[in-house]
Amino acid sequence: MAAGSGRRAGSPLPKQFHTLGGRTVFMHSVIRFLDDAPEVTVIVVCHPDFIQLVEKEMDGLGAAEWLVVPGGNSRPESVRNGINAIRTRLGTGKSALIAVHDAARPLVSALMIREGWHAAEEYLAAVPALPVTDSLRQLSEDGRSEALDRSRFVAVQTPQVFRADILLRAYDRPKGDLSLFTDDASLVEASGVPVALYPGSPENIKITHPRDFAIAEAILHEAEK
Amino acid sequence: MAAGSGRRAGSPLPKQFHTLGGRTVFMHSVIRFLDDAPEVTVIVVCHPDFIQLVEKEMDGLGAAEWLVVPGGNSRPESVRNGINAIRTRLGTGKSALIAVHDAARPLVSALMIREGWHAAEEYLAAVPALPVTDSLRQLSEDGRSEALDRSRFVAVQTPQVFRADILLRAYDRPKGDLSLFTDDASLVEASGVPVALYPGSPENIKITHPRDFAIAEAILHEAEK
Repeated sequence: MAAGSGRRAGSPLPKQFHTLGGRTVFMHSVIRFLDDAPEVTVIVVCHPDFIQLVEKEMDGLGAAEWLVVPGGNSRPESVRNGINAIRTRLGTGKSALIAVHDAARPLVSALMIREGWHAAEEYLAAVPALPVTDSLRQLSEDGRSEALDRSRFVAVQTPQVFRADILLRAYDRPKGDLSLFTDDASLVEASGVPVALYPGSPENIKITHPRDFAIAEAILHEAEK
Repeated sequence: MAAGSGRRAGSPLPKQFHTLGGRTVFMHSVIRFLDDAPEVTVIVVCHPDFIQLVEKEMDGLGAAEWLVVPGGNSRPESVRNGINAIRTRLGTGKSALIAVHDAARPLVSALMIREGWHAAEEYLAAVPALPVTDSLRQLSEDGRSEALDRSRFVAVQTPQVFRADILLRAYDRPKGDLSLFTDDASLVEASGVPVALYPGSPENIKITHPRDFAIAEAILHEAEK
């Protein structure tokens, strides 16, 4: 998923198309997925303005199978465009798996990718989770907030991995309805399928703020040591 | 609060006594608090084994007023030791404020510190909060989990700032009881005082994993640009 429009301060280019450690941000995860399993088909969903840029980068990959698909007006619509491309252009066997991954998480590890595929094979739907390290408070409508026991919560990352038929069915909803869901796991759950957790990683950060680029470079550099 | 025993992998030294950007981790926040308001009294709570190390570093500060206090068996007990030292050795006027800050958050900004003091002056109890960037799931006792709407939650950092009498009263509890609370805000709230939120900062990270040192160096380096 590279369709977001989050921009680095002072730059017209969304963050997933910036350079990180000598490589475009979105290509880091593409390459990590293909390194783990060269038979994977990569579908990059991006804003129509960036299709050419993405195709040029993907061309350099050589033999791998890939598609570039235009995004929609919201993250769930973009995911749906991606999985519709699977439905119409690739077809899926009943046992095919789909991993939905944010391009803004370029540091996903081969280990996490492998655990995601395995967990989805076993449980149909699996998302990576990490303990919450900050204390949490819940906001109430009157503008107040109250403390929560953080051990009862986990933070969820991507890749979120699903058996293809499960994910396709979960997205089979009216458009307006889709925007109620912040991630694929909650959509799948709303379709009646329970979602399993597999271990996330603290290094699998989401690049959100401009300064996260420096953080990501530091993590890359540490990993190379 | 520098009493934690979290250690960097392969090192016997807790993380708050490691070096970051040429300075001991805990001294970063000490200096940032004093830079903002030189009249502040700094109380460092640490394990008895490290009192000498802390005193030696604090000696180098020159004129600032400070105390080093031995920690207890848990974070709340350590905080209580710190505020008891205020009660018995310093005394507090009714309008005195206490900021409780984790030494593992060395990158707190002068701006945040100032906003914390102001918010506590106005609201009696104030903690810095940030939107949650990862999706959240709540764990249930049967081992399952369910999606939450993350916009209803905030992640809480430190410094957590309170009018002194409010914090002293909140900690006036039996020892066994204290361990139920993960932060000062929840304790204060349990004493019947509502807690206000002020803006936290994504750079104000908590050093938790060994790799966070590289991340903190990157943030320091960016901030100096």
